[in-house]
Amino acid sequence: MPTTKYLLDESRMPRHWYNIAADLPVPLPPPLHPGTLQPLGPDDLAPLFPMSLIMQEVSTEREIEIPEPIREVFRLWRPSPLFRAHRLEKVLGTPAKIYYKYEGVSPAGSHKPNTAVPQAWYNAQAGIKKISTETGAGQWGSSLAFAGALFNIAVTVFQVRISYDQKPYRRALMETYGAVCHPSPSNLTNSGRAVLEKNPNHPGSLGLAISEAVEVAATNDDTKYALGSVLNHVLLHQTIVGQEAMAQFEMAGDDPDVIIGCTGGGSNFAGIAFPFIGQQLRGGGKTKKRRVVAVEPAACPTLTLGKFAYDFGDTSHLTPLVKMHTLGSTFTPPGFHAGGLRYHGMAPLVSHLKELGLIEASAYHQTECFDAGVLFARAEGIVPAPEANHAVKAAVVEALRCKAEGKSETILFNLSGHGHFDMAAYSAYAAGKLVDMDYDQAELAMALAGLPSVPEPA
Amino acid sequence: MPTTKYLLDESRMPRHWYNIAADLPVPLPPPLHPGTLQPLGPDDLAPLFPMSLIMQEVSTEREIEIPEPIREVFRLWRPSPLFRAHRLEKVLGTPAKIYYKYEGVSPAGSHKPNTAVPQAWYNAQAGIKKISTETGAGQWGSSLAFAGALFNIAVTVFQVRISYDQKPYRRALMETYGAVCHPSPSNLTNSGRAVLEKNPNHPGSLGLAISEAVEVAATNDDTKYALGSVLNHVLLHQTIVGQEAMAQFEMAGDDPDVIIGCTGGGSNFAGIAFPFIGQQLRGGGKTKKRRVVAVEPAACPTLTLGKFAYDFGDTSHLTPLVKMHTLGSTFTPPGFHAGGLRYHGMAPLVSHLKELGLIEASAYHQTECFDAGVLFARAEGIVPAPEANHAVKAAVVEALRCKAEGKSETILFNLSGHGHFDMAAYSAYAAGKLVDMDYDQAELAMALAGLPSVPEPA
Repeated sequence: MPTTKYLLDESRMPRHWYNIAADLPVPLPPPLHPGTLQPLGPDDLAPLFPMSLIMQEVSTEREIEIPEPIREVFRLWRPSPLFRAHRLEKVLGTPAKIYYKYEGVSPAGSHKPNTAVPQAWYNAQAGIKKISTETGAGQWGSSLAFAGALFNIAVTVFQVRISYDQKPYRRALMETYGAVCHPSPSNLTNSGRAVLEKNPNHPGSLGLAISEAVEVAATNDDTKYALGSVLNHVLLHQTIVGQEAMAQFEMAGDDPDVIIGCTGGGSNFAGIAFPFIGQQLRGGGKTKKRRVVAVEPAACPTLTLGKFAYDFGDTSHLTPLVKMHTLGSTFTPPGFHAGGLRYHGMAPLVSHLKELGLIEASAYHQTECFDAGVLFARAEGIVPAPEANHAVKAAVVEALRCKAEGKSETILFNLSGHGHFDMAAYSAYAAGKLVDMDYDQAELAMALAGLPSVPEPA
Repeated sequence: MPTTKYLLDESRMPRHWYNIAADLPVPLPPPLHPGTLQPLGPDDLAPLFPMSLIMQEVSTEREIEIPEPIREVFRLWRPSPLFRAHRLEKVLGTPAKIYYKYEGVSPAGSHKPNTAVPQAWYNAQAGIKKISTETGAGQWGSSLAFAGALFNIAVTVFQVRISYDQKPYRRALMETYGAVCHPSPSNLTNSGRAVLEKNPNHPGSLGLAISEAVEVAATNDDTKYALGSVLNHVLLHQTIVGQEAMAQFEMAGDDPDVIIGCTGGGSNFAGIAFPFIGQQLRGGGKTKKRRVVAVEPAACPTLTLGKFAYDFGDTSHLTPLVKMHTLGSTFTPPGFHAGGLRYHGMAPLVSHLKELGLIEASAYHQTECFDAGVLFARAEGIVPAPEANHAVKAAVVEALRCKAEGKSETILFNLSGHGHFDMAAYSAYAAGKLVDMDYDQAELAMALAGLPSVPEPA
């Protein structure tokens, strides 16, 4: 039995994003102003984002319409395929049914354009001509560069310096789309200069690159800021993935028992999982009980070992305080290959669901994830991105559990991107040079001890 | 007006390959045995290929059935999309309608799996467990590695040494799929050793890598050989591309006036063009008159400056003699980025059509091709492979001609692969370091003077 593809007709591409805030049994703790420690109002975010996106950030409407010009761009690659991995099932000898939603079909090769395109479009509608952002390995930066090219927005990207130096190909992709890319820390911002003064060879971090990009937007009237994960409106935009998957499962006459996504900031996980979780929340026990599993790197164990607390999203403390699972804003994850998962925090919505017991979390080291990714590539043909290998690993673990228990469960995971830009990691793996990494325990303890002291708001 | 995607339902994926040999007004000159100079019989090829593929090579049946297990694998990514490039048209301000068929959706990122999968399957059906092949930049090697993984065939790839050393990422892709990759020239064959004795630092060439792969197959009973272009059966397998495009043009209610493909060995060009040419040949003047344009690098001008003559496909002269446009089997093209177009010869079928006046040929330098590719990426989102940039360039030239002439012609080109493995070339382009290359005129003259002397067969 070969791999089966479930492809939705374009006419069935979702017309609305799904907003899980409408169905939460307990509302999300509000973001706080870092100065007053009071809940943030929409106006506080106006220097950074156009009001249309701010209203999405705070909305509790269940359905938010996807404007037609955005759907027109999505048609370049959406609806994305859902595959039944018959070959992988056979290799594993499992009675489980394994499905994967494949987001690597976008021009940038990952799920990130699902939010880059709307963010660029809403900014363009507001008359914005310049956006600043940050990127680690470059998935987000290249996606926003692509979207900026479509809507005539000049995109400036602060790329974590170690990636800027070591992984020039996603930078080349950004430049091909016309974006300007600076290594972070840079001399262009106070945040960058302060770090460079202490250490001219600082390798950079995502939290620091966020500080630089936010500073540029906050201090330039003509420039807005965009973030590729974590925020409510970013997760909202990704829900098109899970909604398509629900329609595709109807085509397949099946329904997942286990839903899996890898988590860095939380957006691809939210994209696949939130529509299913929302269905369950609204079903009041009448809907199928599903397990939802977030998978993270053991070397950056935000959900599994982080503290659920108010913290900053960046190292220079320019962002609002949000309640999330965090390793502390000064924590620097080690340099494993899944650059998209190297972030000290987690999306407040994902963190909140974890606290409510609506999702599980697990963590794996990188070599076992690459073992799973190579197994997957040889069975299914697609080479996953290192981030997505975490989801593959968890799917394999669940499939083998089903085998041991003799259960024919249905497993769904989000294959968030292809690995064609990450072949250096596969080279290292093939050469036996890929080693597991771990976080520095003392650094983690110090970062957690440095969490801001925030009284519970009334 | 946004980009429009025409996606064929899986049920409409072609069930037959189209064999242009059935419709040729003049039959193809036969391949000759290099020893006897007599036309080759099927048995002469038996050491290299399974008989099923040899029969396809010599068939004159118009339709050859695509076995269902091959179509099952194709469903991973086929039918591939046809796009109407509204955005590119707008950027160019042309009244022309530009369409592109996108083959970068395959797991290997190019059109090559269209023939790698059938070749691996037919070999597997014949009980073959080992295949040897060659590759330049690695598109073909990685595609055969992918197909080998699916059908449990051990794939050995001889990769041109300069690519092996300088472009390790497609090698990593081959290894991820489980193939073994050797730099060519290698110490594993007589052909390789003979070259290394004279020059231990020889950078390799595609013609030499072919010699090594053919030698391994010819001298090992359990190993067959596979080629990624040039041969009739390889071009046959690619016709699924043009057949899908014909059905998609019906959906679009349009019909191309100009059809464009880049040419290295000729397979992606044949894939998009042959079904349309065949329709015209059978139509006897009643079908729309279309122009068909093959585009090659000015630094490897096989169709535009080569000689139409019997020549060897490899440098060590182990292959049969085929009549084709050739720069001479000892000609080494300069190291431009479109590695897939660096071959001294051209598919006999493509050469034959050129001689019959059924196709045109044009040649461009690499910087103008990258200019076109970057323009395309910013308008359409997809970053083309350097090879495909040649087709983009020719499409832009035709669109601007239509603008100058005030004509609303319909232009179709084959976007044979994405450039995600080729970002080093885009890096060089962005840095202003991409330079045009040209062939060595003295070397070309010498290579042409060294063509074998072959009397016309009776």
